[in-house]
Amino acid sequence: MPVEIDPFHAIAISRLAHRMAAEGASVIHMEFGQPSTGAPAGALAVAHRILDSDGMGYWESPDLKARIAGLYRERHGVAVDPEQIILTCGASPALVLALSCMFAPGARVALARPGYVAYRNTLKALHITPVEIACGATERFQLSAAALAALDPAPDGVIVASPANPTGTIIPDDEVRAIVAVCRARGIRVLSDEIYHGLSYVGPARSMLEDMPDALVINSFSKYFSMAGWRLGWLVVPPALVAAARARMGNLFLTPPSLSQHAGLAAFDCRDELEGHVATYRRNRDLLLERLPALSLTRIAPPDGAFYIYADIGHLTDDSLAFCTRLLEATGVATAPGIDFDPVDGHRFMRFSFAVSTAQVEDALARMAPWFAQQNRR
Amino acid sequence: MPVEIDPFHAIAISRLAHRMAAEGASVIHMEFGQPSTGAPAGALAVAHRILDSDGMGYWESPDLKARIAGLYRERHGVAVDPEQIILTCGASPALVLALSCMFAPGARVALARPGYVAYRNTLKALHITPVEIACGATERFQLSAAALAALDPAPDGVIVASPANPTGTIIPDDEVRAIVAVCRARGIRVLSDEIYHGLSYVGPARSMLEDMPDALVINSFSKYFSMAGWRLGWLVVPPALVAAARARMGNLFLTPPSLSQHAGLAAFDCRDELEGHVATYRRNRDLLLERLPALSLTRIAPPDGAFYIYADIGHLTDDSLAFCTRLLEATGVATAPGIDFDPVDGHRFMRFSFAVSTAQVEDALARMAPWFAQQNRR
Repeated sequence: MPVEIDPFHAIAISRLAHRMAAEGASVIHMEFGQPSTGAPAGALAVAHRILDSDGMGYWESPDLKARIAGLYRERHGVAVDPEQIILTCGASPALVLALSCMFAPGARVALARPGYVAYRNTLKALHITPVEIACGATERFQLSAAALAALDPAPDGVIVASPANPTGTIIPDDEVRAIVAVCRARGIRVLSDEIYHGLSYVGPARSMLEDMPDALVINSFSKYFSMAGWRLGWLVVPPALVAAARARMGNLFLTPPSLSQHAGLAAFDCRDELEGHVATYRRNRDLLLERLPALSLTRIAPPDGAFYIYADIGHLTDDSLAFCTRLLEATGVATAPGIDFDPVDGHRFMRFSFAVSTAQVEDALARMAPWFAQQNRR
Repeated sequence: MPVEIDPFHAIAISRLAHRMAAEGASVIHMEFGQPSTGAPAGALAVAHRILDSDGMGYWESPDLKARIAGLYRERHGVAVDPEQIILTCGASPALVLALSCMFAPGARVALARPGYVAYRNTLKALHITPVEIACGATERFQLSAAALAALDPAPDGVIVASPANPTGTIIPDDEVRAIVAVCRARGIRVLSDEIYHGLSYVGPARSMLEDMPDALVINSFSKYFSMAGWRLGWLVVPPALVAAARARMGNLFLTPPSLSQHAGLAAFDCRDELEGHVATYRRNRDLLLERLPALSLTRIAPPDGAFYIYADIGHLTDDSLAFCTRLLEATGVATAPGIDFDPVDGHRFMRFSFAVSTAQVEDALARMAPWFAQQNRR
C-alpha cells in the first residue's frame, strides 16, 4: 500500500477561514506563507497584453531562464548556465523534481525539525526516509554542521532552508561553510530551498551555490515576487543532472503556466514595488516583536528573513491545532499550528505569517490581545 | 541511484522547430498534442477581469470543482461529489498524484504500447514497474480484456486511455465493460486517462466511472477546452482516497494557478467556440485520412477521437527520430517520433497532431508531398 502522509493542517484552517469570510466574518489571513499583495503592476500589464496576443501553448521561456541565471551572477557572483534552470509550477513540484533526481526510495535525507511540512511529507510520499534533526530555540531552530556530523550513519542528503519556514532564521555564513565541509567529507548531497531569498532583515542571505556549485537549489515567484497563485518556481541543477531533471520535468509536469512565465519575467523589472513590500514586512516584523510579548508570547527567535514568527505557546496549550482553530473562531485571525512544522514539539507552537498589511497586523494584535489575556487567565 | 528515464523526444523536435522559426523559417507545429487555438473568448474576458481585481493567492475554486462534478452527472449520468475532484496543474501532475495514491514502489502497472510517453516514464520515476502490452494495428493499438486476463501474474493496476494518444482510438463500450470485469475479478486497480473526452468523431466516449465508480479518472483543460499553457487539470478519486489525494496535493503541489481556475470555470460556458474547434479537427482528420495515402502512409487506424494520426513509416525508415528531424528541417513540418510512444516498435511510426487550422493541414500536406515522394525514391 502507498504510504500515509499527513495533511497540511493550515489548509484546514484556511478553509474554515474562507467559510467564515463567506458567512460575513472579518478574517485576517496569517495562516499561509503568501503575500496579501498581488503581482507587481508591471507584471499585470504584461499579462493583459499576452492574454490578447498569445495562444499560450506548452512553453518554456528562454528569456526567463536567462534572467534567472543572471540573478545568481548579479546577486551571488555565481555562474549558472540558463540550461541549468528548470522552470516549474511553483517550488512544490520543484521539490518533487529535485528529490526524484537525487534519491531513490529507501534513501535517508536529513532536515531540521521544525521545518516546512512538505519536506517531510514529500520525502515520505517518494518513499525516502526523513531523518529529522531536532533544532530548538538555542540553535535558533536551524541545522548545524555539528548536528550533521553527529548523524550515524551519514544520511544520503540534506535539505537546507535559510531563511527557514516556520522561523525565518538564517544560517550564519560561517555555519553554511561548515555544513558544506561536513557534507563534502561525508558524501551528503545538498538541496537548498532558497524560496525566501530577497526577504531578509539582517543583510542578504547567501546562496548555497556560492559554497557548493553542485548543490540543487529551489526558488519561486511566490514570496519575494508576490505571485503565489501564479504557480511559478524554478530548480537549479548542476550540469551533470540537467538531462535527468529535464526528462523528469517533461514527463511528470510538462511546462509551467505560460502567462506566469511572461509575467514573472516582467516582475524582475518591478524592484521598487517589490522592495516596498519588503519594507512593509520589516515594519510588521518589528511591530510583532514589540507587541507579542504583551500577549505572553515571549519565546521567539527573531526572524532574520521570510515573513514568519514561530512562537512558543506551551504555557497556553498542548494542542496547537485546536488552539489555532479557537483563535480563528473567536477573533477571525487565521494562523498555522506548529504541528504542521514539527510533529513532535509542534503541539506547543504556532506560526504567524506577517505578509499582510501593517494595518492588518495592528488589527490582528488588537483582536488577539483580549483573547490571549483570557487564555492566560484559564 | 535514481532510475534513468527517457527524455520526451517531441520536446527536442519542438525546440528545433522554435529555433528554426526564430531564424525566420515557416514552421507548422504538429509535434505536440496542443490546440493551436487559444482559450475561448469568454475565458479570456474573465481572466482580464480577475487580473484587475484579485490578488491571486494559493486557492482552490469550489465553484470549479462543483462544475466539474456536474460534468459527470450531465454527460455520463454519474454522481460525483465535488470533494472527489482534486484540481491540479494539468494532467501530468494529476498522473503523479494518482499513481502516488494508488501504488507503492515495486507495484506492477499494465498499459498499452504504444501509449503516451509520460505513463511509462512517470511509472519508472516513481519506481513502479510498467507492464507494457503490445497492441498492434489489428487491435487498433488498444488494450483488450483478453490481454489483461492473459497477464500472469495479474498486475496491480492498469492505465486505460480512450481516446488514446498517439492513435486516437476509442475502446468500444462492450470491451470497456469486459475490461472492468477482468479488473474486478483479478483485483486490478484502474486509472483512466480521459484527457481527450469531448474530442470524438464516432459518438461520445464512455467515462470509466460509468462502469467502475472506484476507478481514478484524469482530465484536463488542455485539449477540449484549448487551454494547454494554462496548466489546469483534475483527478477524480473515489471517496475512500479523497483524504490521501488531498494530503498529497497540498504537500507535493499545493494549488493550481488561480487565474486558470477562474478562466476554466468560464470556459464551461463557451461551448459554441469549443465545438467549433471540434468541427475543425473533424475536417482535419478527414483531410489527412484522404490525403496521407498518396504520401505512402496507408497503415493507419482511423482515429475515433483526440487529434492524432499514428502512421506506420516502416517502409521509409527504422529511425523515427531522425526521420522526423529531417522532415522538420526540410519542410518546416514538426511531428512526433513514434519512439516517444513505443520504445520497441516506435522506430517505424510517427504521429501527426492535427489540432491546427485546416489551412495549416493543407499547407503541411503540400509541403510534405514532394519530400515523401523523394523518400520513397531513395
